[in-house]
Amino acid sequence: MSALPAERLQPRFWWSRDDLDYVDGRLHFAGGDVAALADAVEGPLFLYGQARVAANLARLQGALAGVGRPTRVYYAMKSNRHVPLLEAMARWGRSGIDACSPDEVDRALAAGFAAANISFTGTAVSNRDLSRLLAHPELTINCDSVGQIRRIGERAPGRAIGIRVNPERGTGYGGSERLTYAGSAATKFGIYRAQWGEALATARAYGLKVTSLHFHVGCGYLTTELDAWDAAVGAARGFLDDAPDVTAVNVGGGLGLPHREGDRPLDLARWAAILARHFRGRDVTVAVEPGDYLVKDAGVLVLGVVDVETKRDTTFVSVDGGFNLAPEPVYYDLPCEPAACTPRSFDAASWRPVTIAGNINEALDTWAQDKPMPPLAEGDRIAFLNAGGYGAAMSSNHCMRGAFTEMLLSG
Amino acid sequence: MSALPAERLQPRFWWSRDDLDYVDGRLHFAGGDVAALADAVEGPLFLYGQARVAANLARLQGALAGVGRPTRVYYAMKSNRHVPLLEAMARWGRSGIDACSPDEVDRALAAGFAAANISFTGTAVSNRDLSRLLAHPELTINCDSVGQIRRIGERAPGRAIGIRVNPERGTGYGGSERLTYAGSAATKFGIYRAQWGEALATARAYGLKVTSLHFHVGCGYLTTELDAWDAAVGAARGFLDDAPDVTAVNVGGGLGLPHREGDRPLDLARWAAILARHFRGRDVTVAVEPGDYLVKDAGVLVLGVVDVETKRDTTFVSVDGGFNLAPEPVYYDLPCEPAACTPRSFDAASWRPVTIAGNINEALDTWAQDKPMPPLAEGDRIAFLNAGGYGAAMSSNHCMRGAFTEMLLSG
Repeated sequence: MSALPAERLQPRFWWSRDDLDYVDGRLHFAGGDVAALADAVEGPLFLYGQARVAANLARLQGALAGVGRPTRVYYAMKSNRHVPLLEAMARWGRSGIDACSPDEVDRALAAGFAAANISFTGTAVSNRDLSRLLAHPELTINCDSVGQIRRIGERAPGRAIGIRVNPERGTGYGGSERLTYAGSAATKFGIYRAQWGEALATARAYGLKVTSLHFHVGCGYLTTELDAWDAAVGAARGFLDDAPDVTAVNVGGGLGLPHREGDRPLDLARWAAILARHFRGRDVTVAVEPGDYLVKDAGVLVLGVVDVETKRDTTFVSVDGGFNLAPEPVYYDLPCEPAACTPRSFDAASWRPVTIAGNINEALDTWAQDKPMPPLAEGDRIAFLNAGGYGAAMSSNHCMRGAFTEMLLSG
Repeated sequence: MSALPAERLQPRFWWSRDDLDYVDGRLHFAGGDVAALADAVEGPLFLYGQARVAANLARLQGALAGVGRPTRVYYAMKSNRHVPLLEAMARWGRSGIDACSPDEVDRALAAGFAAANISFTGTAVSNRDLSRLLAHPELTINCDSVGQIRRIGERAPGRAIGIRVNPERGTGYGGSERLTYAGSAATKFGIYRAQWGEALATARAYGLKVTSLHFHVGCGYLTTELDAWDAAVGAARGFLDDAPDVTAVNVGGGLGLPHREGDRPLDLARWAAILARHFRGRDVTVAVEPGDYLVKDAGVLVLGVVDVETKRDTTFVSVDGGFNLAPEPVYYDLPCEPAACTPRSFDAASWRPVTIAGNINEALDTWAQDKPMPPLAEGDRIAFLNAGGYGAAMSSNHCMRGAFTEMLLSG
């Protein structure tokens, strides 16, 4: 990351970083002047910072060194499948890919990842899917159901497989139910303890060697959720005792990052210590498949201000892009913090609460409500932070407002 | 619609219709055998019934005859922009198009609609949008903000315009807050009473003639919501008194349809009587812009069963398509009723409650929970009803599971 000259920085915000802050009153990200970059293209712009992704990966791998076991990182490409980013990660050679559909596997292969570095964990995996997946013998396939084990056995007896298990415990960002994948209610994911014996027997019947155990027990979890995550990992670990051929345990993804002022970042040292405690003395590689953790804060969505106008008693700042470009703020209560790219003033006394609204004909299409912002005018740009994960990747062409540009910056 | 021979029908379901029912134990829709059509393509299949769209339009236009004023229907193409369907509607010549983005306008023009038959009502309409819209002098443009009026005035002084107003009242399906566009909290839509004088003055300043008044005060409303809708229309009508040049009042869309057993269809006669009462003696055309009402129950999404498997205490039927193909069930609580295409039995005693789950790696990706279904097995097909609106049109390529086929059937 290109550090900014300290004397030119404005007062820092909760989200300010070396690669994301104001310089001479203009927002810079990943070495670029955000408004100037947006001026160079038409319409919504996603900017991704390659160095920030690398820094996130390095920080995670640094923490993993404390686990005391061999470790692997598989990047969950469902969060961001921008091809230049995938190609960069393949060149680095420091991580593999977590894929959840055959098309994702094909894109990862095309970007330069070897099948041996791809871990596939899908759900409702069809026979059509299987015929594509089984064409790659080196691919790790974590089976989500007994039926999938059987159908692999029928097609590729003797193959090595993984099994996704469900320990009936889990946690999500802020305790969100929507983001809980393995909790008190039965979810569709993985093999429960009640079906575990049947799963192993099915694998045996086809000579399938269970070499990998997979579970995913959190989504967006932060330090405050680590106790719950700890308990879930402990519950999942118990499955290991019945699977002597397992050489890799994949503890899933879900590592969260701050979305709001006051959110504390995930304490990676404590996170790694939990893994160290659970897998001490176990002869396994510990794998993890972060998505958001690597890319979300390495991306911003830049939109242009269309109108600033009071409606009844509310000041609306309308922008030229809507929730269809990044659905998580609206649907998952995971906000993208708005930052004016060229604020007219940093004096808090001049800031006023506004509602920032998109260009989709749905009432829910707002980016922020009652958000203090500096004076804004038509033509200004707003950068929405934390748009690097599950933004473009989940975007739709709703209202035919789905066009955007993506740009990978090296800084 | 092709009526089915009555003696070959199975016991009817709440959703059964002449063009949608079982014949010899197989689900037929729009004259086609649904499972057989699905077998002819790979992966998820949207089927649309052209005759059902025509019937919905005819029913609505029949009711509109009771309004006692000239009326117009603009189809809200944001609900379904499948080109062959748009082309069919253009050929019929019985309705115009409601568009909300310049790309939608272009698609409508390409499908055969004249600009004079297109009504544009967007939000956060940018200058880039305006330059494209103003290229069509015959296009009706309903302005959503004072700023939009001003920016049109600067670019096309003297033009005729519409104004979208917000009467601060509204209603949605089942009272859903998410679907309320004009309620107690200020929304981004339209001109409120507090800014109405400024809006008219701005139009006058640029010689813009306000010939159309637009409001949208409901979403998915049924008969039970008609009293609230009535009050909202009454509140909106008051704006007319200050706009003597208005020749058309567009009462928006939002006409709902049954989503669940027990939902009563919208009482169109009563709906039309409300319009008749409010616009009696007013020298205006009454326009309406239905989307879902025309297309939603004219479409089904057909998915294949991948696995049927008990997980803990729940039977999961997993299918080869997820919520990214039709987001409303998950995000808006507007379910798509599942119907087995070739049930092994119609004997209710053999039906069991199941959870139907899609192939997206998110816990919320379920189509139905605790839903009684006949015995199902791998390879069976399930048709999800009411998938004709805001399904394909809002779909995403999340997890790279976004591929599907669309087919327009004449029946």
